[in-house]
Amino acid sequence: MTTVSLQSLNAADKAVFITALGDTYEHAPWVAEAVVGRRPFATLATLHEAMMAAVRAAPTDQRLALINGHPDLAGKAARAGTMTSDSKAEQASAGLDRLSEAEFKEFHRLNNAYRTKFRFPFIVCVRRHSKDSILRHFEHRLQNSMAAETKAALGEIFRIAALRLDQKVDASDKLKVHGRLSTHVLDTHAGHPAAGVTIELLELAAHGEPRLIASVTTNLDGRSDQPLIGGRPIPIGRYELRFHVGDYFTRRGAPQSDPPFLNVVPIQFAVAEPEGHYHVPLLVTPWSYSTYRGS
Amino acid sequence: MTTVSLQSLNAADKAVFITALGDTYEHAPWVAEAVVGRRPFATLATLHEAMMAAVRAAPTDQRLALINGHPDLAGKAARAGTMTSDSKAEQASAGLDRLSEAEFKEFHRLNNAYRTKFRFPFIVCVRRHSKDSILRHFEHRLQNSMAAETKAALGEIFRIAALRLDQKVDASDKLKVHGRLSTHVLDTHAGHPAAGVTIELLELAAHGEPRLIASVTTNLDGRSDQPLIGGRPIPIGRYELRFHVGDYFTRRGAPQSDPPFLNVVPIQFAVAEPEGHYHVPLLVTPWSYSTYRGS
Amino acid sequence: MTTVSLQSLNAADKAVFITALGDTYEHAPWVAEAVVGRRPFATLATLHEAMMAAVRAAPTDQRLALINGHPDLAGKAARAGTMTSDSKAEQASAGLDRLSEAEFKEFHRLNNAYRTKFRFPFIVCVRRHSKDSILRHFEHRLQNSMAAETKAALGEIFRIAALRLDQKVDASDKLKVHGRLSTHVLDTHAGHPAAGVTIELLELAAHGEPRLIASVTTNLDGRSDQPLIGGRPIPIGRYELRFHVGDYFTRRGAPQSDPPFLNVVPIQFAVAEPEGHYHVPLLVTPWSYSTYRGS
Amino acid sequence: MTTVSLQSLNAADKAVFITALGDTYEHAPWVAEAVVGRRPFATLATLHEAMMAAVRAAPTDQRLALINGHPDLAGKAARAGTMTSDSKAEQASAGLDRLSEAEFKEFHRLNNAYRTKFRFPFIVCVRRHSKDSILRHFEHRLQNSMAAETKAALGEIFRIAALRLDQKVDASDKLKVHGRLSTHVLDTHAGHPAAGVTIELLELAAHGEPRLIASVTTNLDGRSDQPLIGGRPIPIGRYELRFHVGDYFTRRGAPQSDPPFLNVVPIQFAVAEPEGHYHVPLLVTPWSYSTYRGS
Repeated sequence: MTTVSLQSLNAADKAVFITALGDTYEHAPWVAEAVVGRRPFATLATLHEAMMAAVRAAPTDQRLALINGHPDLAGKAARAGTMTSDSKAEQASAGLDRLSEAEFKEFHRLNNAYRTKFRFPFIVCVRRHSKDSILRHFEHRLQNSMAAETKAALGEIFRIAALRLDQKVDASDKLKVHGRLSTHVLDTHAGHPAAGVTIELLELAAHGEPRLIASVTTNLDGRSDQPLIGGRPIPIGRYELRFHVGDYFTRRGAPQSDPPFLNVVPIQFAVAEPEGHYHVPLLVTPWSYSTYRGS
Repeated sequence: MTTVSLQSLNAADKAVFITALGDTYEHAPWVAEAVVGRRPFATLATLHEAMMAAVRAAPTDQRLALINGHPDLAGKAARAGTMTSDSKAEQASAGLDRLSEAEFKEFHRLNNAYRTKFRFPFIVCVRRHSKDSILRHFEHRLQNSMAAETKAALGEIFRIAALRLDQKVDASDKLKVHGRLSTHVLDTHAGHPAAGVTIELLELAAHGEPRLIASVTTNLDGRSDQPLIGGRPIPIGRYELRFHVGDYFTRRGAPQSDPPFLNVVPIQFAVAEPEGHYHVPLLVTPWSYSTYRGS
Repeated sequence: MTTVSLQSLNAADKAVFITALGDTYEHAPWVAEAVVGRRPFATLATLHEAMMAAVRAAPTDQRLALINGHPDLAGKAARAGTMTSDSKAEQASAGLDRLSEAEFKEFHRLNNAYRTKFRFPFIVCVRRHSKDSILRHFEHRLQNSMAAETKAALGEIFRIAALRLDQKVDASDKLKVHGRLSTHVLDTHAGHPAAGVTIELLELAAHGEPRLIASVTTNLDGRSDQPLIGGRPIPIGRYELRFHVGDYFTRRGAPQSDPPFLNVVPIQFAVAEPEGHYHVPLLVTPWSYSTYRGS
Repeated sequence: MTTVSLQSLNAADKAVFITALGDTYEHAPWVAEAVVGRRPFATLATLHEAMMAAVRAAPTDQRLALINGHPDLAGKAARAGTMTSDSKAEQASAGLDRLSEAEFKEFHRLNNAYRTKFRFPFIVCVRRHSKDSILRHFEHRLQNSMAAETKAALGEIFRIAALRLDQKVDASDKLKVHGRLSTHVLDTHAGHPAAGVTIELLELAAHGEPRLIASVTTNLDGRSDQPLIGGRPIPIGRYELRFHVGDYFTRRGAPQSDPPFLNVVPIQFAVAEPEGHYHVPLLVTPWSYSTYRGS
């Protein structure tokens, strides 16, 4: 995705600004128009605040139209390929573009029940969720009152907008939309970081196979050069880290049983705060290990 | 299986003794006959020693016949249902009675290669192995010299005999043929044993699904009332313990994230010594855990 | 101390029974007299219950006389050597026979304040306490009302009586007056129990030097043959276990730095339940360790 | 200490350069003179290399004079106050200015034995050692041959020079003379860093009281704002970290026994590599903890 600097947006023609940010709110370029006159924006945060304020200040009908402008999750628009490119990429990020027939039916059922109750589409910032988490969230929000749900929908729209701004605009500040998932491996048998350990990160699903998210090898400091997930929200969901310690200890010549007591160490954990820092390390000998949520 | 006491065997008619123990060595009641005159046996160990001595003292041809009396692993006899009942139960214990077509072909290939090289069937004490371990062992022993392999086959026959004696004869002593696999769960968040935790033990396979071996719930001492595996060898192989700690902490009202950071904790490990004691505990809080090979 | 069996007490002359148990309550043989007619006692617990019931049923004046029959803690009777032998041994167990001048003055001050307020001596079952714990308890109980304190004093008298019965009388049952403190050392570098590790147990004091309670060497199972404290209450207080792991790893030839990263590992902890089971193990490599309250 | 930039030293008059660096080698301004003509030095490392090369290239007599120019450790010069200010500060850093009478005698004995054998003073880079470590090192080097010891003395002189350059000269590069000792505290009961924990670092001594080196309180990240030791070598020796976790858990309202099972957690460890990174964290609940050498 090409990005644009906040500085240049501050200096640009009004039309250029509106074109650049018109997609921030789904089918609602009027939000960008509403704030173009308030330039310059010192930070991305103040730009985001101004756009949210514009939405909050709009007439009720216009806000409702904004909500109604969103496509169903895993709905007909997705199947028909008529979504905005932002929505398309977002839904794909949570795997909504590769549902099983059973999952598609479940989304269909929930979409219908939701529309029947609230008369607008269910909106959630899908980049912050796994498929399982979206379904759980969906069931939960179906229980809301109309007032609570209108507020919830708007909250999700603001989260979506924040992520779109984060991806489009370069500025000196960052919106608080990034989480970080990292690990490290400490060889407490030798008393130093474990280098050269292969680690896989998988996203788990209540139904269906785990999905490989990342595969890294630890450096001399026992860490991956980059976080396993960074620069984006960590989708709420369950994960498994797989540490290939048997191979590591074999290469290092550490005494092990045959077959080795530990080979691939799986650690399963859930992420509940997409913008949080999750550090999930492994302290390991050929006969023992421990892990914890660090930060 | 009905058992008989060593005391009554010592006092019985010769024919009764030979009938009772004639199956200890496959198709070789002559081993029991060879020792019946050396009664009384003070211990099961001295009976076992005497029978092994009789085998070792037998003419080479007779020993070779003993070896040849064994069925192929997962071979035609198994398919045709013509094995001794002992062999049938033993092969079933390692899952050789429910192989996939691919696995059956692999055994067929190994059996042929082995018979071609050694001109007798491959013998292994299958109760000490998982399917994966048998295959690994098979490949390894194919590399042996004839002398080494004849010795290895006899060693396995003695192990099989020891287990058959252990199952048939009650005595004041026990042959060293039993391993023990146990666990316990300590709640280091509350500082006491974790009661009511569901734990599953699965046997893992290189190919195919994990197989559930045991499912227990911890008692007030954080342990299972019985060992997960006891009174028999622990088959060499890979295992997974699954500790349902999320449910436990929820019941106990311990603060957790939503979804809980830890839910089902999987611990994978290998057993290398079938007669060893493996204690694989879990020390756990809602945010951390550790495990180790204890004893 | 010579012990007597419950069976023989049940069968003995009344006078013998009363002589044997007359010291159970300080200067109050009337308690033993009150229950002699209720023999036989099936268990030690029912004997203890009967004696407590006799005290509770006695006239108020007699109960107050019982309370007043106790010596001050670390008081003039102790200095003058005029206490009963039971009281003498009990006070010595908590180190009250070797106070510094400052501590003696502190006890004197507390004894005076207590007698001024309650007009009877402060009674506590000293075998359940360290010196620090007695002083803390003393300060705390000084805040009580007369009613609460009379009840507290009686409760302590019953605890003292239970311990005296436990030491004097052999029976098939045990009163719940015994705690247990144990440890074990697991070498998670090698994956087996650590044998031959020297461990010292010290009682810590807010003022003054630590006092050595026990020194043991681990057996092949990584444990001490006997609990570090057993067969008696564990005095409420702070303790330190000192594990000499540097020597152990050196003997075992495990690679260590020079000087070794870990040498003597100190673990400090407090006991709050004198009748509880405290298991305080060490899981250790040359570069890491962990401990926890087990049971 | 005032520092001077490498840049200005490169540009300065020869005399200024020699004055500034004349003390780098004890009583040997000739080393600075020998390299002044080789300016400019691009890095501090090349300056240090050049000075070492000048020493190595000097006639044997001059090198021996350099060695002989050093004062005894804890010797008469120290008592008489006639050492160079560098030597004085260095010896004080290891506590050689506050020896007990017994320690002073021990140094006296070793100095005499050493001078008798080698006919020059014992030289060691004391900033890399604790008092215990110097004594151990001293005994060890007394066993050396003359050739080995002359080489050892020169090696120590180079280490001393490196540290003096590191303290005097600002440059874009750093000599590898700095170690780092750090810690952090993770509350695995709550699943987040433990903020506000008081931690003391003490240097332990075989004889005599521990010496407080640093006292810090953990920040929101569970760490100290600065390393406990940084910007200098960590003296080889034994240390104790004392973590005041009882107070922390009390403030946080975590359930604990009375008295709390854990109060002050002591962790004792040794440093063997003065230029290494030692990270010694604590993972702790009210009932358990673990530590390890991290990096």
